[in-house]
Amino acid sequence: MNITSAKVIVCSPGRNFVTLKIETDAGIYGLGDATVNGRELVVAQYLEEYVIPSLIGRDAGQIEDIWQFFYRGYYWKKGVIDMAAIAAVDMALWDIKAKAAGMPLYQLLGGKSREYINVYTHVNGETIADVLADFEVALSKGYKFIRVQCGVPGLAKTYGVTKKGVAYEPANANLPEEQVWNTTKYLNSVETVFKAVREKFGYGVELLTDVHHRLTPIEAARLGKMLEPYRLFWMEDPTPTDNQESFKLIRQHTTTKIAVGEVTSSIYDIKDLITNQLVDYIRTTIVHGGGITHIRQIANLAALYQIKTGFHGATDLSPITMGCALHVGTAINNFGIQEHMPHCQVTESVFTHAYQFDHGTFLVGEAPGHGVDINEELAAQYPYKRASLPVNRLEDGTLHPW
Amino acid sequence: MNITSAKVIVCSPGRNFVTLKIETDAGIYGLGDATVNGRELVVAQYLEEYVIPSLIGRDAGQIEDIWQFFYRGYYWKKGVIDMAAIAAVDMALWDIKAKAAGMPLYQLLGGKSREYINVYTHVNGETIADVLADFEVALSKGYKFIRVQCGVPGLAKTYGVTKKGVAYEPANANLPEEQVWNTTKYLNSVETVFKAVREKFGYGVELLTDVHHRLTPIEAARLGKMLEPYRLFWMEDPTPTDNQESFKLIRQHTTTKIAVGEVTSSIYDIKDLITNQLVDYIRTTIVHGGGITHIRQIANLAALYQIKTGFHGATDLSPITMGCALHVGTAINNFGIQEHMPHCQVTESVFTHAYQFDHGTFLVGEAPGHGVDINEELAAQYPYKRASLPVNRLEDGTLHPW
Amino acid sequence: MNITSAKVIVCSPGRNFVTLKIETDAGIYGLGDATVNGRELVVAQYLEEYVIPSLIGRDAGQIEDIWQFFYRGYYWKKGVIDMAAIAAVDMALWDIKAKAAGMPLYQLLGGKSREYINVYTHVNGETIADVLADFEVALSKGYKFIRVQCGVPGLAKTYGVTKKGVAYEPANANLPEEQVWNTTKYLNSVETVFKAVREKFGYGVELLTDVHHRLTPIEAARLGKMLEPYRLFWMEDPTPTDNQESFKLIRQHTTTKIAVGEVTSSIYDIKDLITNQLVDYIRTTIVHGGGITHIRQIANLAALYQIKTGFHGATDLSPITMGCALHVGTAINNFGIQEHMPHCQVTESVFTHAYQFDHGTFLVGEAPGHGVDINEELAAQYPYKRASLPVNRLEDGTLHPW
Amino acid sequence: MNITSAKVIVCSPGRNFVTLKIETDAGIYGLGDATVNGRELVVAQYLEEYVIPSLIGRDAGQIEDIWQFFYRGYYWKKGVIDMAAIAAVDMALWDIKAKAAGMPLYQLLGGKSREYINVYTHVNGETIADVLADFEVALSKGYKFIRVQCGVPGLAKTYGVTKKGVAYEPANANLPEEQVWNTTKYLNSVETVFKAVREKFGYGVELLTDVHHRLTPIEAARLGKMLEPYRLFWMEDPTPTDNQESFKLIRQHTTTKIAVGEVTSSIYDIKDLITNQLVDYIRTTIVHGGGITHIRQIANLAALYQIKTGFHGATDLSPITMGCALHVGTAINNFGIQEHMPHCQVTESVFTHAYQFDHGTFLVGEAPGHGVDINEELAAQYPYKRASLPVNRLEDGTLHPW
Repeated sequence: MNITSAKVIVCSPGRNFVTLKIETDAGIYGLGDATVNGRELVVAQYLEEYVIPSLIGRDAGQIEDIWQFFYRGYYWKKGVIDMAAIAAVDMALWDIKAKAAGMPLYQLLGGKSREYINVYTHVNGETIADVLADFEVALSKGYKFIRVQCGVPGLAKTYGVTKKGVAYEPANANLPEEQVWNTTKYLNSVETVFKAVREKFGYGVELLTDVHHRLTPIEAARLGKMLEPYRLFWMEDPTPTDNQESFKLIRQHTTTKIAVGEVTSSIYDIKDLITNQLVDYIRTTIVHGGGITHIRQIANLAALYQIKTGFHGATDLSPITMGCALHVGTAINNFGIQEHMPHCQVTESVFTHAYQFDHGTFLVGEAPGHGVDINEELAAQYPYKRASLPVNRLEDGTLHPW
Repeated sequence: MNITSAKVIVCSPGRNFVTLKIETDAGIYGLGDATVNGRELVVAQYLEEYVIPSLIGRDAGQIEDIWQFFYRGYYWKKGVIDMAAIAAVDMALWDIKAKAAGMPLYQLLGGKSREYINVYTHVNGETIADVLADFEVALSKGYKFIRVQCGVPGLAKTYGVTKKGVAYEPANANLPEEQVWNTTKYLNSVETVFKAVREKFGYGVELLTDVHHRLTPIEAARLGKMLEPYRLFWMEDPTPTDNQESFKLIRQHTTTKIAVGEVTSSIYDIKDLITNQLVDYIRTTIVHGGGITHIRQIANLAALYQIKTGFHGATDLSPITMGCALHVGTAINNFGIQEHMPHCQVTESVFTHAYQFDHGTFLVGEAPGHGVDINEELAAQYPYKRASLPVNRLEDGTLHPW
Repeated sequence: MNITSAKVIVCSPGRNFVTLKIETDAGIYGLGDATVNGRELVVAQYLEEYVIPSLIGRDAGQIEDIWQFFYRGYYWKKGVIDMAAIAAVDMALWDIKAKAAGMPLYQLLGGKSREYINVYTHVNGETIADVLADFEVALSKGYKFIRVQCGVPGLAKTYGVTKKGVAYEPANANLPEEQVWNTTKYLNSVETVFKAVREKFGYGVELLTDVHHRLTPIEAARLGKMLEPYRLFWMEDPTPTDNQESFKLIRQHTTTKIAVGEVTSSIYDIKDLITNQLVDYIRTTIVHGGGITHIRQIANLAALYQIKTGFHGATDLSPITMGCALHVGTAINNFGIQEHMPHCQVTESVFTHAYQFDHGTFLVGEAPGHGVDINEELAAQYPYKRASLPVNRLEDGTLHPW
Repeated sequence: MNITSAKVIVCSPGRNFVTLKIETDAGIYGLGDATVNGRELVVAQYLEEYVIPSLIGRDAGQIEDIWQFFYRGYYWKKGVIDMAAIAAVDMALWDIKAKAAGMPLYQLLGGKSREYINVYTHVNGETIADVLADFEVALSKGYKFIRVQCGVPGLAKTYGVTKKGVAYEPANANLPEEQVWNTTKYLNSVETVFKAVREKFGYGVELLTDVHHRLTPIEAARLGKMLEPYRLFWMEDPTPTDNQESFKLIRQHTTTKIAVGEVTSSIYDIKDLITNQLVDYIRTTIVHGGGITHIRQIANLAALYQIKTGFHGATDLSPITMGCALHVGTAINNFGIQEHMPHCQVTESVFTHAYQFDHGTFLVGEAPGHGVDINEELAAQYPYKRASLPVNRLEDGTLHPW
């Protein structure tokens, strides 16, 4: 079964997505997600000029070899652009192979290891009262794992917090918005919302929070200790992972569990974190982390150290990535949790999928392949429109991680 | 597709083999190898009394879950008996899944990463002259990788060495034969055969040798240095792996490459060897190492450290293990080499297989599943007959690793 | 004094036991325990087909050499099946030698290091009230060391907890029962029972608890910190020992003492735990850990690091193992504590023993040998009946350590 | 001085280059190189769609802040595509600032630390005789540091080796050419050319060689030892740097100096190599490594460990990168050597520059800025034409690093 053609579909049904479609001489096609938030056209160009011409004529079944061809076969170390392009190819080829086998993808990955996929959702508010109200809504939808972000008094905008009733979308501007951050204001206020949530809703629901790389290691250690009484399911991205040793300092001081990885693309970006047991959940995504082939290698390594997956699942990953994540999550033993930030209706109309939300969980679906398709005609009605994530500055103007 | 029945077939076509056959309500069956040399009936008992009753009625597609059920789900740490039983189940289930997909197994493992599988064969002799003669025969069959073992002057028998024209079979007696070993005699004589081979045949052929766990770490270090001029492809099992740190001492002293693992069953038996870069080839077999599921986890870990596979392939592994090894070896990127000690004609008549020997390589074959079948009627004509590996003693009677 | 015969006795007086009886030309016989819970027939087969034939005719006094013959002389790494078989031989040979000397076994092990053996017992209950009532009963029997397990609200069954008045027996079903686990529910509730016990009974009694491998390292670290106010004698098996480094993370966060080892068989399974001082008590049993010969090696290594013994002593170990454990415990300096989960009356009727329970302690007894005998006629009235330990799943179906 | 416009110039005068031109309201413009070999249009797209729109209106003097804006201000970890785009901005802004100061760039970097820049050149040949002839030519041009690559007998093509009289250009095909590699053939032959060179030309000239990531760590260790008698200036890229620990094994065995980094983009890609003193020269380029700002940080860290620079200088880096490298090399104390693979005449006609070759060294030039300009009209006559680097396979088809 050889690859006869491939094309890139860039569309913006609610937000921008880059999709790779690979066709074969057996009449089977496969789809892969190549979206990198705020760099969409770059990956599209990468695929069109440098990947697709080398794909044509290859045996679609040689997934590992094709992966190595584009990874090891290209010269420079792999950043998110390269890894997203490779990921798109990898997802599409696994889709094709599972369709050729007449099986849902999870079967090729080892079969079902669980009945359903636990997901966590986002709850937020500018005030504690807003958070509590939003929390109640999430519980009513059946969510049992909830990420809580609350406005920081004294800051105009806070990461993860939106106006009441407006869906949160960080890539909110044509060019990067410059926001303001103050660590002391954050650390002085962050505890209260967890106290309020635990007082009102008890300890029967799992709480998570996202620090979004804004603290130094010792500040993160302090935060972890401060939040111990609220028994978080995890504290996410407490500090950047560039220097993996940083997490040793956090780990010395707190038993609050740690999730990292949504900005990592290669197993080497997190190898030391894993092998030194510095984190508890790995969030590298299938689209930014080289596809199913590479993510399984990461999950395998993590399993050796009792570390579980907690794949990133924001709206900038297309339903194709979500579909693949649910298949991988269904198959591996060390699945932990899946993030779920629901796509808008327009996105859902363009990308049809076999997976279904069911009372705080996802059911993976039984369609052959990864079960996600694209309505190309409809997609064509939503052309690409540049949208950028913000940057962050301290009050004196210093550039700070967003 | 549910498992409806399973049975264990113990036969001795040339030597003992234990085979697990799993049948499903889809009419598809799968075969797994459960042979542990010299402990065959133990694994058969393990499967019949403790594994098969729990298999009946399970979904044959849930390979990972079934693997975990028998591995993590049973209480004690896993030795070779447990891992061989699990491996047999795992091979049979992958066989079933690939047949259900209508694909050769390597397709489900990621597709072809190479055209053929390089193998190495064994050459031996009581004298250097015998070795040189046998070497010539091996070259004439197309082998490009050759393991060399030569008789040690002063020892009645040497591991790996047989009488001229007689196929080597170490499990040669009803009860363990007690052989005699002397490290000094070995170290005083071992170099000469490599010198003779290089002088006669040059450096265009790869040479390997098996030390069979008989040296202490510092002796192994000395041997590695001594053999450097002969540029070995590998030095196998220079010292036992029980204490993985032992290899640090060898590694400090020599750049001769090292292969280990044929007596290991779990990834934890070799994890430190891998993560500390103490070896170059991993020889854990599919049958003794928990099947395809576990071996892939090992190969993945090894790949991170540029370590390759060099699967054990003696005649005590049935053609089913060889078939699976060739499919895994075809699919992974970090395949290194496959051992090939040919099965006798009787074995080959009972186990038919899609793989073929071709001028020093194996071609994996395109039959759906792993491509190995058993002729049960013929098998029944060769009943089990106990056969034991030898033990080893120093000249004063001290028990020493064989 | 040569071995003339040996046989395996499989019986089920209350539960399954595998016993090896070795006879000599001096008319002295010895008994060894070979029971592996849920794999009994496997070890029986191992002994009958592969061990006993090699024993006949050997000098019964060569305990060390026979140990090495079956351990180092067999090719694969040692799992619990192999080690239980070797252990049975080892116990029986020490029994013979002590009988030949006309001495209780502890004399050959170096003589008495203490007057009596402290033991701990199990107290449990579905509610705190049940635990407190059971605790009172244990105190009344003289126990000064008490393991406490309490039902977890929201879980149908909890490890270690039984219905009021019913003796706990985890191997409770023909095939493994699938139980459900939830770490959060456990961690949210576990502290209260210790608070209640300390409030009611004060700090004059030693408390232990068994985590049964269910937590990840960071969760175990959190538990250890949480329980510090209750000054536990130990926290048992907080996380699996497969990756021994895991315990470093626990150790960084808490001074709660740690006991491990009941699922380990080889000194190498715990060597790093010992040499890095990551635990405080070693629980490897004599029957699963290669017998008296290997256990003394483990205890010797532990002594170097001020680590003591805390041998596993559940009902799945026959009175023969208990007898041997009491002799070893009497003789070594670094004995810590002995678990005591009393055998039922039927077991006690089949296995007669010299050791006696005495107000929360055991007196080892002065009979020659290890002091435990089997009534073969009575044993024959209780045939083997398969019984399996449960497996554990998370609520979504994920297989989790039991 | 604000940025008023910026544009990307893609041209192919002999080979493809991507150039960024930034213009200011002061009438001063600056030039930066953004070429990534075989991914040129990707970086062009990155700059045009996602960088230039955010540049317009910014103060051209805020080099550090703009660097942080695009590096820390963008969300994903930085691969070569991102770093090349940032590098182009950084070079152009330093060019502008130096022109505004009326000074050659090295003045702003701290002034002259040396009179001239030592460079090394490439010598190669299919046979030793060809190498010796080419070596003589290099000596006649004044080179005192010479990289030697020789054809490997039995391989159709060897990295770094070209036909007599033809300039070497690895990006030689529209789509990646698949070449064949054999490590044994390389290791069996590589020593002889150094022996021949030393015999003919003595020890007064410095020799280098490029292993191009093709060996495993232990193979690289063996090569380093083997080449010690020839006293190499360095052995380049002996193994991939993905797993930085790999170099520990090489370092244990040989004192042959090591250079790495041409495929690295971030200081974190080489931090462990530097802080563990595992290499001697850092080859990260200015264009692929985030520009002058980031390279100075790398050079600073290296200086702490007595490690020097050895910047990559192949023809795929435009003369703009060479100009910047010479200014940095002139200014820092721990400059080591600069690679010099001469651009062809067409390249030189499009990019005019102040730096000059002078008897095996470069003189940096005294023109304000970095001293390199582009003739846009001429450039327009050489449109982009896709050219790809090869990939590498073992003889059995396994993908191997090129």
